[in-house]
Amino acid sequence: MTSRKKLQGLVAATITPMTPDGQINLPVIRQYVDYLVNEQTVKNVFVNGTTGEGLSLSIQERKQLAEEWVCQGKDKLDHVIIHVGALSLPESQELARHAAAIGAGGIAVIAPFFFKPTNKVRVEELLEGIKERIPTFQGVKFSDTDLLDLAQCIHKNEAQQLEFLYGVDEQLLGALAVGANGAVGSTYNYLGRQTNLMLEAFAKPDLVLARKYQFLTGEFLNFVIKLGFGVAQTKAVMTFVSGIPMGPPRLPLLGASEEFIAKAKAKLDSIVWPDGN
Amino acid sequence: MTSRKKLQGLVAATITPMTPDGQINLPVIRQYVDYLVNEQTVKNVFVNGTTGEGLSLSIQERKQLAEEWVCQGKDKLDHVIIHVGALSLPESQELARHAAAIGAGGIAVIAPFFFKPTNKVRVEELLEGIKERIPTFQGVKFSDTDLLDLAQCIHKNEAQQLEFLYGVDEQLLGALAVGANGAVGSTYNYLGRQTNLMLEAFAKPDLVLARKYQFLTGEFLNFVIKLGFGVAQTKAVMTFVSGIPMGPPRLPLLGASEEFIAKAKAKLDSIVWPDGN
Amino acid sequence: MTSRKKLQGLVAATITPMTPDGQINLPVIRQYVDYLVNEQTVKNVFVNGTTGEGLSLSIQERKQLAEEWVCQGKDKLDHVIIHVGALSLPESQELARHAAAIGAGGIAVIAPFFFKPTNKVRVEELLEGIKERIPTFQGVKFSDTDLLDLAQCIHKNEAQQLEFLYGVDEQLLGALAVGANGAVGSTYNYLGRQTNLMLEAFAKPDLVLARKYQFLTGEFLNFVIKLGFGVAQTKAVMTFVSGIPMGPPRLPLLGASEEFIAKAKAKLDSIVWPDGN
Amino acid sequence: MTSRKKLQGLVAATITPMTPDGQINLPVIRQYVDYLVNEQTVKNVFVNGTTGEGLSLSIQERKQLAEEWVCQGKDKLDHVIIHVGALSLPESQELARHAAAIGAGGIAVIAPFFFKPTNKVRVEELLEGIKERIPTFQGVKFSDTDLLDLAQCIHKNEAQQLEFLYGVDEQLLGALAVGANGAVGSTYNYLGRQTNLMLEAFAKPDLVLARKYQFLTGEFLNFVIKLGFGVAQTKAVMTFVSGIPMGPPRLPLLGASEEFIAKAKAKLDSIVWPDGN
Repeated sequence: MTSRKKLQGLVAATITPMTPDGQINLPVIRQYVDYLVNEQTVKNVFVNGTTGEGLSLSIQERKQLAEEWVCQGKDKLDHVIIHVGALSLPESQELARHAAAIGAGGIAVIAPFFFKPTNKVRVEELLEGIKERIPTFQGVKFSDTDLLDLAQCIHKNEAQQLEFLYGVDEQLLGALAVGANGAVGSTYNYLGRQTNLMLEAFAKPDLVLARKYQFLTGEFLNFVIKLGFGVAQTKAVMTFVSGIPMGPPRLPLLGASEEFIAKAKAKLDSIVWPDGN
Repeated sequence: MTSRKKLQGLVAATITPMTPDGQINLPVIRQYVDYLVNEQTVKNVFVNGTTGEGLSLSIQERKQLAEEWVCQGKDKLDHVIIHVGALSLPESQELARHAAAIGAGGIAVIAPFFFKPTNKVRVEELLEGIKERIPTFQGVKFSDTDLLDLAQCIHKNEAQQLEFLYGVDEQLLGALAVGANGAVGSTYNYLGRQTNLMLEAFAKPDLVLARKYQFLTGEFLNFVIKLGFGVAQTKAVMTFVSGIPMGPPRLPLLGASEEFIAKAKAKLDSIVWPDGN
Repeated sequence: MTSRKKLQGLVAATITPMTPDGQINLPVIRQYVDYLVNEQTVKNVFVNGTTGEGLSLSIQERKQLAEEWVCQGKDKLDHVIIHVGALSLPESQELARHAAAIGAGGIAVIAPFFFKPTNKVRVEELLEGIKERIPTFQGVKFSDTDLLDLAQCIHKNEAQQLEFLYGVDEQLLGALAVGANGAVGSTYNYLGRQTNLMLEAFAKPDLVLARKYQFLTGEFLNFVIKLGFGVAQTKAVMTFVSGIPMGPPRLPLLGASEEFIAKAKAKLDSIVWPDGN
Repeated sequence: MTSRKKLQGLVAATITPMTPDGQINLPVIRQYVDYLVNEQTVKNVFVNGTTGEGLSLSIQERKQLAEEWVCQGKDKLDHVIIHVGALSLPESQELARHAAAIGAGGIAVIAPFFFKPTNKVRVEELLEGIKERIPTFQGVKFSDTDLLDLAQCIHKNEAQQLEFLYGVDEQLLGALAVGANGAVGSTYNYLGRQTNLMLEAFAKPDLVLARKYQFLTGEFLNFVIKLGFGVAQTKAVMTFVSGIPMGPPRLPLLGASEEFIAKAKAKLDSIVWPDGN
């Protein structure tokens, strides 16, 4: 994991394609990589996370998926980050060793969520001296709407060169304003191109244009959130946008309804983006 | 309330000064107005809100305060907005009529919080057709960290020319990024000058400078929030920053501790603002 | 308030009758008192509480209601308790003095709910040494499902002879099991007779019969809770059960729908109580 | 799993003994079984649940533990129930098949807690027609303080002969009052004998005595809950009460402090139970 490119910009939280009978559909990954790079201009992926139903998969399945993404992403993707979080620490360690062995670009772990801290802890406090405790620590996927905490994290960790990728897709612009380096999210699977245009506008800075993009992605997300929007629905949206069959989710998730799909598609089709697409 | 100036920029959520024995301290308001205008460059106030312990006051006290602010603010302040929300609708109506009678610049009401809606409603939905139902409706003090909702509100109500003032002081920059017109908050009593400099930087746009100001106000707020920060503490901070005696809070609030005051003062004094002050 | 009867058994949290145009309907109180005593076998009332929309009324209205209940309850009711809680402490004190002046049997106050404690406090801790701080303190309306806290309260305050009246009507039997003295609730307006039969069965003890009553009141409450059950719906139920016109609720509450009323009535009529009624 | 005894009374949610270096300590299980039966009069166990850190173990470890409990419990315990819940459905199914193969008395599964239902569902609704969908379904570990839901579950499922074991140890008496058949909990590892005396008192019924036992267990639990009480602390308490070394918890849990242990032990020693022990 040496001489790495800096991790910034958009990272797609990848979906795990499944066959109609609920098995992971590895052969589709190759097409998925090409689609992200060529159609969505997204060159970083986050594999086996929440969007990828990582915790609903067996350890063996997670390894297979990690291998396929690393293999297919070679020379095409900039960073393949494998989420290795698990409720069982030995299993998480096993996944981390595996990620290193197959040459993944990095690993990520979710915070404990079954046995969890009883007091609310700010991320900013967690990061104090983190590099001394975890020398390979690179950054945080920050997925809270508390931008005070995010701003403090960024400010206090400039010297440590940590990267802060924002995880609440629908309000990324607010996070960019306080200094986020990029974003990890499921939206970037199918709205990556438009979001990259927002990042460009913001970098100029052309805030009026950036705001326009954020409004329009918000318009779509706001609409589907009201209908009930989760991983199952994201799989359905990605299927109709990309044409790649993402398949059904695994239980306990239930597939998106036909009604949801029809409405979501109509909504997305109705949006006119500033670049005319 | 005709030919009014547009309400934008900073609005100080005013503190209600009290005497040591817990009565409202009207004679101090004059000095308070001058301090906001001259030292904090803030020309709008929001009276009898949460920061002003409005709901802890009797109806009579609320009227007296409203009158004093309108009277002292004449020719000095741009907008004096009176919060008239009360749990009892007849009392709220009485306060609204009184505000109109004394020539207040506008009124505001808190949403029901005792008997409250059982389902979470987005502000954006509440505003659909609002001008038809309430022709004098002017805008919203938006005090949630959900910037998706805020962005949709702003976008969908451009034609109605509603104003959106953000109420989470510690992440105002994020709200500006998605299009907020200004802000209502307790912070602007004592950090109004610096926040106005942030607004100026943002307007240029000089995001690096704006971020610097937001980081520094965040540095202070983050510090005091960890110590326990509420209306009582705000009264204490305003007292040591402005020199105007704000007095103790009214029960059920308890006054800030000497320890809090010492620490908060030391923290604020330690901050070096970009303009050298 | 001397030589008082011990407060135990059922206390009806009274509804505030209103006219169709939203004014309080004082002349109905007399009939209401007789109904509670004669039809529901309930001889204690809690006036101006949540069920009575006390916080939606003006101070003047609260005083008028308190007077009417004390006056009409004379020689008929055992205890008339006036809720005097208000967000404004001066107003709460005014109501308390008024309750004393008119000869109410006692007062009650809600805990602060706008500015509120930031840490969760157990009732048991609040009661430590309460008699020394408030010599006239008599007891607690305990409205949480945490029966550990309730049991500790009862156990530790036996010497102080405090009374613990339970406020979660749908699980009163559980509270009786750990030692509650009685109950305050809106249900006892229209299911007081049946609940008194449950108390009798529990006192024998005939737990099988007590459980039967609790199941049946639960059957009704469970049904209406699913439909959406609050103060407005309680007013409607009381109207059709007692025949006394309770009128509409005051804003921000909206009246119960005709559909709700029809369903709730059909459900209640379908229940066969163990005593054959 | 045929000709089974009815599952009722107390079920100990077993702790997973670990060696100082964090490996599962299988050889201790035999002693643990004898202790539960002989000292605590508890003859049912729930293995690999939350108290047993089941979700922190690898699949292999969970199988080993299940085997050891079934093996050691033979002819000594009435029921050995294996918790087979996992975030990954294939893994959960694998554990269920394994439990059947080794002759466990039953299995249990936790409800989905990572991807979870977006609306609150009452248990009573979940059980409608459950026997048709899952013919081997036997009952519910009900771990909520909502006794209305519990009472409705019990009442409506009498015909199906489902068993309802209560899981909030500190308010078991309330659940017994509304009809629970027994209880599953961590407390019964070390206070099983006293709780069985409470069940006996309740069955007579001698409510005054039952209440006394509930007060005293509550006295202990209330005390330790204030200190911070979770699985790690339960391991420590069980170690000093039983003399069996339960070892440290596995990360993310941290071991109980020496201070906690000293205080908890002193508290427990100070309690005088009605039977003189």
